[in-house]
Amino acid sequence: MEEKDSLLVLSGGMDSTTMLHEYQSRIALCVNFSYGANQNEREAACARANCLRLGIPLVEIDLAFMGKYFRSSLLEGADAIPEAEYAPENLASTVVPFRNGIMLSVAAGLAESRGLRRVMIANHGGDHEIYPDCRPAFIDSMGRAIADGSGSLVELYAPYTHLTKNDIARRGAAHGVDYSLTYSCYKGGATHCGRCATCIERRQALIAAGLTPDC
Amino acid sequence: MEEKDSLLVLSGGMDSTTMLHEYQSRIALCVNFSYGANQNEREAACARANCLRLGIPLVEIDLAFMGKYFRSSLLEGADAIPEAEYAPENLASTVVPFRNGIMLSVAAGLAESRGLRRVMIANHGGDHEIYPDCRPAFIDSMGRAIADGSGSLVELYAPYTHLTKNDIARRGAAHGVDYSLTYSCYKGGATHCGRCATCIERRQALIAAGLTPDC
Repeated sequence: MEEKDSLLVLSGGMDSTTMLHEYQSRIALCVNFSYGANQNEREAACARANCLRLGIPLVEIDLAFMGKYFRSSLLEGADAIPEAEYAPENLASTVVPFRNGIMLSVAAGLAESRGLRRVMIANHGGDHEIYPDCRPAFIDSMGRAIADGSGSLVELYAPYTHLTKNDIARRGAAHGVDYSLTYSCYKGGATHCGRCATCIERRQALIAAGLTPDC
Repeated sequence: MEEKDSLLVLSGGMDSTTMLHEYQSRIALCVNFSYGANQNEREAACARANCLRLGIPLVEIDLAFMGKYFRSSLLEGADAIPEAEYAPENLASTVVPFRNGIMLSVAAGLAESRGLRRVMIANHGGDHEIYPDCRPAFIDSMGRAIADGSGSLVELYAPYTHLTKNDIARRGAAHGVDYSLTYSCYKGGATHCGRCATCIERRQALIAAGLTPDC
């Protein structure tokens, strides 16, 4: 049996929920972050539901200071979210400065505190152009920072870095992920809006995986 | 006139308060973090006093989740703090896992949000043996992570990395730092205990700088 030695950053979206299912035998603990984004509350509810279903403990951490002090359209309510395809020019305003760096740093400290030696995150290839803190170069340098800053007790593992969103949905379908227990919409409404970039991307990925789109 | 382009992580201890004074012409903003450590409240009061005196704005951020979820004697009350000299075997329990990584990540996101291009931290040579996240290797890799994750908008600058505590106190004396407006004790009491490692180190540094020790 594999050792349960990993902590997963679980947003409650499609990518991290797929990783949760694919790597469940290694994941000892998940951590979900709220940071004042429109979708955080509905994402967290999905994270809770999946952890409960798989019997994996979940720590929920509120980074409320980001909503208060950081600048991003994602932190300014549904009306600030562009309605357009998933492309750099449409999504530049949704960058939350150094968001993955902050989440990974907290996850690294939490993993070290719990004696876990691996932090996992589900960044993927589709986000590279838009979000600097999803790119392979950042994952590499942040991985070194985590190893150096923890005295080599913790390492970073991001196995979806070079996959597309469609690849991930196909993996999820193969692992029986119930995507109705995931949330993607940047507007944060009760149902997926179907018009923002993340909804358009979600729809395409579900179709590519042979599943029924829900937005 | 130099550009005010830097954000300083200001604990309110001797090192960061010295850096605040030495680099005040470049520092546009300071950030102070509370994370459940015994000394946080008194350090924050010192950070406020120095920022007020120099007319530099201060953002105070509460990382309460660290006190709740992380493991360190520094987060467990005054009685858990060893009374002994500043040496690795005495201070291992005071490591707060990945603390500097977390503070620097938040500072990087805050700097990017405010259009500031440099994050400064006052780690120094005396901490290298004990705290992995004070070592030059960590500063190098974290600096790369901040540059990569911010799309090269923010850089890390840690000019005290190779100085000793005594060097820093000498610089502070030369810049007229009032060390009575700094706090060091790991126990967090109303006066410096004089027996914990940070108090012993503080005393030695003040003496080395030709100042009157206060503990």
